[in-house]
Amino acid sequence: MGVWEAAKEELRRLLGFRALLSRPEKEVYRYDAILVGEEPFAVALPRTREEVQALVRLARRYGLPLVPRGAGSGLSGGSVPLGEAIVVAFTRMDRLALDPATRTAWAEPGVTTARLSEAARPFGLFYPPDPASYRTSTLGGNLGENAGGPLCFKYGVTGDYLLALEFVDAFGEAHLLERKAYDLPGLLVGAEGTLGLITGARVRLVPIPQHRATLMAAFPEVEALAEAVSRAVALGAVPARLEFLDPACVDAVEDYLAMGLPRGHALLLVETDGDDAELVQEELSLLEETAKAHGAKVRRAQDEKEAEALWRARRAVSPALGRIRPKRVNEDIAVPRSTLPEVVREIRALGEAYGLIVVQFGHIGDGNLHPNILFDPRWESEEKVWDLAHAIARVALRHGGVLSGEHGIGLMKRKFMAEAVDGETLEAFRQAKAALDPEGLLNPGKLLP
Amino acid sequence: MGVWEAAKEELRRLLGFRALLSRPEKEVYRYDAILVGEEPFAVALPRTREEVQALVRLARRYGLPLVPRGAGSGLSGGSVPLGEAIVVAFTRMDRLALDPATRTAWAEPGVTTARLSEAARPFGLFYPPDPASYRTSTLGGNLGENAGGPLCFKYGVTGDYLLALEFVDAFGEAHLLERKAYDLPGLLVGAEGTLGLITGARVRLVPIPQHRATLMAAFPEVEALAEAVSRAVALGAVPARLEFLDPACVDAVEDYLAMGLPRGHALLLVETDGDDAELVQEELSLLEETAKAHGAKVRRAQDEKEAEALWRARRAVSPALGRIRPKRVNEDIAVPRSTLPEVVREIRALGEAYGLIVVQFGHIGDGNLHPNILFDPRWESEEKVWDLAHAIARVALRHGGVLSGEHGIGLMKRKFMAEAVDGETLEAFRQAKAALDPEGLLNPGKLLP
Repeated sequence: MGVWEAAKEELRRLLGFRALLSRPEKEVYRYDAILVGEEPFAVALPRTREEVQALVRLARRYGLPLVPRGAGSGLSGGSVPLGEAIVVAFTRMDRLALDPATRTAWAEPGVTTARLSEAARPFGLFYPPDPASYRTSTLGGNLGENAGGPLCFKYGVTGDYLLALEFVDAFGEAHLLERKAYDLPGLLVGAEGTLGLITGARVRLVPIPQHRATLMAAFPEVEALAEAVSRAVALGAVPARLEFLDPACVDAVEDYLAMGLPRGHALLLVETDGDDAELVQEELSLLEETAKAHGAKVRRAQDEKEAEALWRARRAVSPALGRIRPKRVNEDIAVPRSTLPEVVREIRALGEAYGLIVVQFGHIGDGNLHPNILFDPRWESEEKVWDLAHAIARVALRHGGVLSGEHGIGLMKRKFMAEAVDGETLEAFRQAKAALDPEGLLNPGKLLP
Repeated sequence: MGVWEAAKEELRRLLGFRALLSRPEKEVYRYDAILVGEEPFAVALPRTREEVQALVRLARRYGLPLVPRGAGSGLSGGSVPLGEAIVVAFTRMDRLALDPATRTAWAEPGVTTARLSEAARPFGLFYPPDPASYRTSTLGGNLGENAGGPLCFKYGVTGDYLLALEFVDAFGEAHLLERKAYDLPGLLVGAEGTLGLITGARVRLVPIPQHRATLMAAFPEVEALAEAVSRAVALGAVPARLEFLDPACVDAVEDYLAMGLPRGHALLLVETDGDDAELVQEELSLLEETAKAHGAKVRRAQDEKEAEALWRARRAVSPALGRIRPKRVNEDIAVPRSTLPEVVREIRALGEAYGLIVVQFGHIGDGNLHPNILFDPRWESEEKVWDLAHAIARVALRHGGVLSGEHGIGLMKRKFMAEAVDGETLEAFRQAKAALDPEGLLNPGKLLP
């Protein structure tokens, strides 16, 4: 029996054959929502922290890398396996315990974001971070990528809700730590599984606001939209959601839904929320007036139903884009709000220069932009697409922005890190990595260039 | 010229004699607000990041440890020098730049907490973390200890406001990092200067709430007070401040001020805030009703002036305690709110068993308790005092609490860390420390046991 057969036999003994996938099922674990990796050595589906610890010890003995994975809905290749690796899929570790009195929840990494929020609802609480994939994405994945979402302008990102973390380190030891010095839990947030495997988290829940209000504003120019947003925020508005669609995106959605959107315009969708109905409307009025002063036509939802209809435009973006080209690269940059008009213009010009379709939308409150490159791999060069993606990332860096707003670095932006972070800091990152994972077993080939 | 003389000569050349203190001035830099350390080799007062970098390189060459220091108002000995060390006092690095449009401020480490908040006020903004020493404490010190304060129940601690950090590492390299993976800025928060020297920070500011309301509730028993707080929080109250004084503390303040406080009672002081006057009063009413249902007598301030008078009781705690005994050890534990009655009882009993005066107060919303041991070193044994402090820390750990709520570990609680954190986690901490400061030059003898 060869060494690999021995490793598989040990894995089978450890987990049982139902928790160890082989061909063809393990094929499914090659990709996330954007990239395809290599066929993993094995896919393990542990149910307990102890199994995760045993897995790490086994992996160490055989020198097999471990690639943690939640729902595989990531957008930067963070959970995509490379070379001979064991994918550790956490979907079966999905215990959830709510403590409404302390407004916290203890969740295993496989609990989906939506389930966490829905379980809190009967107690008048919710869990704010809302990545687009929140129905399927898992808390473990959200922590690994420090996921954001539309609500994050007002409510903050995943890491802001983490109170304590349980993780298994590269030696198979388990740790349960509050966010006290040294804040290793915080260091693991966004680290994409390269510093430890998350096996549980205590997160903060917040009261559901009692009132909400929505408007849609159509601007003739992206510039005016970005300025209106900056102005309203400076005046004190903190909307719950602040979403932007560029004219190309609006046209795509209108082609798809024919819901009467103003073609050729940049759209802003705003939701305010709070416990006081009047203040919620006042805050929306501030947005409305600022938008009008910047030349926008504003439609204010009269009730929840109309609000839902307006938000449909935002939710339709993904399927609408899929009708234009079968594939897309979803970029994820964040830039200072003041630079948005220029950034949007440069990216549009880059798309034209490359002869590729680029649409732009995103969480404009945070300056978090998602330029999407749409393409058909049958007749458009993927290499050119990735070149353009790289050029887009460079635009962000040039304007004082960052490589990733909320999707993470993963495999996709790994090589851009050397441009985003100076050499000494990268060296500090490498030292931190070497300290916690000296043999490089934890998700190698991700995040660090 | 000996090697130490050479080091001093180099320091003088680097900083100029006005920025390098010798005897007797440097004596002042031996202590913080609670502990006395050893006479430092030198005290350096750099004015720029470049000087800090040069200082680190010089210290490396001579193997001289560096002890960063803000205002020296710390309560755990974090900035106290040990052995031959260079104290790096950041008080002259106090540049501050506000950006109201993005609601952020860039501050050097020597900017005081109060100045930051006051500079933001004309723009309708403030900086919430409010340690008791906020008038003198510096942002660098606050970041190093991850300082809290009364407002932190609602608004969060220092680390929650950090957006980007500039620091000089143990090799003299400077880094300016957003809070993206790896989140080294977050790792430096609360690390007490053991992982890097902070030279600047971009922090978040928030709008000043337009309305506030205050009440004082007197409970015959601490138990009933703790239960009322738990109940009100579970019902949805998020007061801005939620302060507790035990009966011994109330008596001390009443002896001092004779303001008519109910002797022998446990006191709760509550402040609610927000932009809607009615909601602010409603939230306070929820607290009032819950307190009454738990047997409290409630006094509600009718205006700002009366509110100020009530808060005077809280602010008088420190001077009042000074009149009972000349010295005190200010403990700082945080426990789950539900365990507070039992924790307060056990600590009271410990004080009696040791024959020492112990009073208790703190930010009860967070379960953050400050048991203070009052003593006179002329006839009460300091060793016994520290023994009792240790026993108090153990009570916190036994009830699922942590060693430090907001004062940090520093020198004072360093040896307790081995009881608070398991061996494997300490090993991970040591690896992180070794990765970022392999020669152990940065504030040695602090935090890690």
